[in-house]
Amino acid sequence: MSLIKPQTLKGFRDHLPETMMPRENLIETARQVYRSYGFAPIDTPALEMLDVLVGQGSDETDKQMFRFEDAGGRQVGMRFDLTIPLARFAAANVNQLGLPFKRYHVGTVWRGERPQRGRYREFMQCDFDTIGTTSIVSDIETALVIFDLIQAIGIHDFTIRINNRKILNGLLEKSGLLEKSTSVLRAIDKLDKIGVEAVTREMKETAEVSDDQATSILKLSQMSGSNAEVLSQLGSLLDGNQTGEEGVDELGQIISAVSAVGVNEKHLKLDVGIARGLDYYTGTVFETTLDALPGIGSVCSGGRYDNLTAKFTKQVLPGIGASLGLDRLLAAQEELGLIEKIRTPAPVFIPYFEKDRLNDYLQLAAVLRREGVGAVVYPEQKKLEKQLKYADRQGFQLAIIMGERDFSEKKCQVKDLARHEQHEISLQEGFNSLLNHVGSALSRQS
Amino acid sequence: MSLIKPQTLKGFRDHLPETMMPRENLIETARQVYRSYGFAPIDTPALEMLDVLVGQGSDETDKQMFRFEDAGGRQVGMRFDLTIPLARFAAANVNQLGLPFKRYHVGTVWRGERPQRGRYREFMQCDFDTIGTTSIVSDIETALVIFDLIQAIGIHDFTIRINNRKILNGLLEKSGLLEKSTSVLRAIDKLDKIGVEAVTREMKETAEVSDDQATSILKLSQMSGSNAEVLSQLGSLLDGNQTGEEGVDELGQIISAVSAVGVNEKHLKLDVGIARGLDYYTGTVFETTLDALPGIGSVCSGGRYDNLTAKFTKQVLPGIGASLGLDRLLAAQEELGLIEKIRTPAPVFIPYFEKDRLNDYLQLAAVLRREGVGAVVYPEQKKLEKQLKYADRQGFQLAIIMGERDFSEKKCQVKDLARHEQHEISLQEGFNSLLNHVGSALSRQS
Repeated sequence: MSLIKPQTLKGFRDHLPETMMPRENLIETARQVYRSYGFAPIDTPALEMLDVLVGQGSDETDKQMFRFEDAGGRQVGMRFDLTIPLARFAAANVNQLGLPFKRYHVGTVWRGERPQRGRYREFMQCDFDTIGTTSIVSDIETALVIFDLIQAIGIHDFTIRINNRKILNGLLEKSGLLEKSTSVLRAIDKLDKIGVEAVTREMKETAEVSDDQATSILKLSQMSGSNAEVLSQLGSLLDGNQTGEEGVDELGQIISAVSAVGVNEKHLKLDVGIARGLDYYTGTVFETTLDALPGIGSVCSGGRYDNLTAKFTKQVLPGIGASLGLDRLLAAQEELGLIEKIRTPAPVFIPYFEKDRLNDYLQLAAVLRREGVGAVVYPEQKKLEKQLKYADRQGFQLAIIMGERDFSEKKCQVKDLARHEQHEISLQEGFNSLLNHVGSALSRQS
Repeated sequence: MSLIKPQTLKGFRDHLPETMMPRENLIETARQVYRSYGFAPIDTPALEMLDVLVGQGSDETDKQMFRFEDAGGRQVGMRFDLTIPLARFAAANVNQLGLPFKRYHVGTVWRGERPQRGRYREFMQCDFDTIGTTSIVSDIETALVIFDLIQAIGIHDFTIRINNRKILNGLLEKSGLLEKSTSVLRAIDKLDKIGVEAVTREMKETAEVSDDQATSILKLSQMSGSNAEVLSQLGSLLDGNQTGEEGVDELGQIISAVSAVGVNEKHLKLDVGIARGLDYYTGTVFETTLDALPGIGSVCSGGRYDNLTAKFTKQVLPGIGASLGLDRLLAAQEELGLIEKIRTPAPVFIPYFEKDRLNDYLQLAAVLRREGVGAVVYPEQKKLEKQLKYADRQGFQLAIIMGERDFSEKKCQVKDLARHEQHEISLQEGFNSLLNHVGSALSRQS
C-alpha cells in the first residue's frame, strides 16, 4: 500500500499542545467571566441549511462559504460566524429560553478565504450576546464583561473604545446627509488608513457632500480630551437633534456606570472615530485595543443591533454583543511574554528507574494527583539520563527521582529541571514534607 | 422578504443552556483528569483531504462520511472520529512532539447516519491516547485515568471491564483456529445477544470449528470468580502458548498495579467476555459499565493497538487509548439525578427596582463577582414581581432585593428562590455580612 502524505488542507492547521494549552486556558477564562455575568453556553450545528446562511453576511462571506449538497440532496453550508446561527437559534427557541436571553458561544467557523499570514480557513470564535432588551444596562454590562475579561487574561494596559452610531447618524441628519450615510460611513471608516484629505475627497465624490458638510462630519473624528470633555463637545455639536442627543445620553450613562463600579477612566475611552460595521450596528459600539500592541487591532469588538432575527421571525429581538478575538489575544499574550512554552500540563515527572518499584512510582504519582499536582510516570525503564532529557524537552518542572537506595532509606531526590537544583527529601514520616516541597517549588516557578 | 424557517438540518440539534452547562462541566472534569496524567490537548481540522479519511474505518463510515469538492476542486471530507485525525497528526508532527506522546482531544465529528432516538449526525468525542510505547505502564495508566474520571464525574458504582486480545488469540492458536479468528470473534461478540447455542452454531457454520474447539473457546466466556481466580484459570487454559501467557501476564500486572494505587478490586473486573473491535485492538481492551445503569452500555472504552500510523509513515507508532462516551455519560448523570436543571450559570439575581439606583445595583453585582459569586442585574426596571418570576424560571438561587428604604437604612433583603425564605441583612458595616450569608445559602443549596 502506498503511503498517504499526512498533510492538512490548504488554509487549515493542526494545533499542537504548546498552542492548545494557552488556547484552552484563554477560553476557560472567558467562560468563567461570561458565566459570572449570567451568560449561559449554547451550541449550534456546524452545518446549516444553505438558505439559513446565504445573504446574511456580505457578498464576500457568501462567496467564501463552504457549501455542498449532502447525501440527502439538501443544499448545506458550514457556518462562517456565530451570529447567524444565534439568530436562527433564538428564533427557533425563544419560547423556551425566556427573555432577556444571555448566551455565550465558543465554536469553530469556516471561511474559504485566500490563506495568508495569520489568516486561516478554520478558526474559533468566542461571542457573548444579550438579546431581547434595549436597556442601557446591557450596554454597560458588555463594557464590564470586556473589562473583566482582559484583566483576567493578565493584561492590564488596555483601552475599551466606545462610540454610539446615533452620534454620527444624528450629525448626518442634522447636516441633511442621512440618505448618503452608507457612502459617508464607508469613507470615514478609512480615516486611519488614508487621512483627512483623501476621506474628504472620497466623501465629495461618492456622496456629493459640500465642503461645509465634510468639515462638520470630520469634526467628530478630531475630537479629543477626557470623556467628559468629548461628551460636552458632542452635546453642543448635536444640540437639538433627537437621535444625536440620545447617543450622547447613552454614552454618558455607560461612562458613569462603568466608573461607579470602579473601573479607571483610562480603560474606557469615548472615541467618536470608531464606526464598526456599516449597516449592522445601531447604537453603542465597542473596540478594545492593547496599549502595548496597538498594531494588533481590536481584541474584543461588538455593539448594539436593532433586530437579530428579522430573517426568521416577525418577533423583534434587539440585542447587544461582542466577540473576543481569540487568535489576536493569543498572539498578544505570546508577544507580552504571558505564555509559557510547555508541552505537558502536568508539572511533575517521575522516572521509571527500578524495575520492581513500578507500583511504588505509580503510588507516588497518585498521591501527588490527589493533592492536585499533575504527575507522570515515564512508561519505559530506560536510562535515567534519557528519561530526564525527555522530561526537560516536554517542559516538566520537577522530577522526583527514587532509586533502590532512596526506597530503602525512605527518601527521594527532587530535581528542579529549570533551575538545575536538586534536594533530598525524607519520606520517613510519609509524603507531607515532599508535598510541601513540591508545592513551594512549583509556586516559585509559576 | 419571506421568512426562512429557523430549523436545524435533519439529524442535527441545537444545544440549549440546560444541556450545554452539564456538557461543559463534564468536559472540564475530563480535561482536568487528563491533564493531571500529563495528557496534553491537541486539535485538528474538521475537514481533511478525502484520501486521509477513506478506507480507514469501516465501509459504513466511508459511506456515512460528509464529503464534497471544495471551491479549489479538492475532494474533502468531514472527520467522523478523532482517531484517524490523530494518526495523520502524529505522522505529520512526530518529530516535534517527542515520544511517548500523550494527547487528549475534545472535538466534534460528523456521520451521516440514519437519524434515530439518541443518534445524531453531529456529536462530540473526548479521547485520550498514549502513543509511541508498548510499555504496560500506559495500560495501567489508562485504567487509572478511567477510574479517576468516572469518580470525578460523581459516579461511584461502576466497573471497568478489562480483557486482553492475546488471551483469545492464544486460545485460537492453541486450538489451531488462528486463521479463522475473524469469523470466530464475530460470533463470540454476539454472545450476550444470542446465547451460547446460537454462537456455537454460527462458529461451526462460518469457521468450521469442531465441537471440542467450540467448547474450549466458549470456556473463556463462562469463566467467573475474582480476578485472581480467573487469572489462575486462564493460566492453566493457556499454559504453554506464548501469546496467551503474555496476555495473562499483562492482565496480572495491570490488576496488581491498579490495586496497589488504592483502587478497590470491585472497580476493575477481568472479563474475558469482552472483545471490542474485530481487527483493531491487539492487547489490553477496556469497557466501563455503570452498575446502576447496565443498559446504557460502556461509557468509556478503548484498548491497545500495534500501529496507529501505518497509512501515513513507515515509522511504527504503537499505542493505547480510550474514548469517553459523552452523550451516554450525560444521559447517565441525568438519570442518576446528578444534574441540576438550571439555565443560568450565575446564582444571584439582583432586581432593577429603583430607577436612580442602577449604579448601586451594578456595584453590588461587581462586589459579588469579585468574591467569585456570579450575579446578574435585571436590565429593565419592571415590576418586582415580573423580575422575580423571570429569576425563578431561569433557575437563579438567590435574589438580593434593595428598595429605596433598604438603601436609606443600609440593608437588603435576600430571598432564597427555591426555599421561598427571605432574610434581611444589614449593610451598616459594608458587604461582609451579606457575602457570608450568600456564601452559606449557596452552599446549603448545592
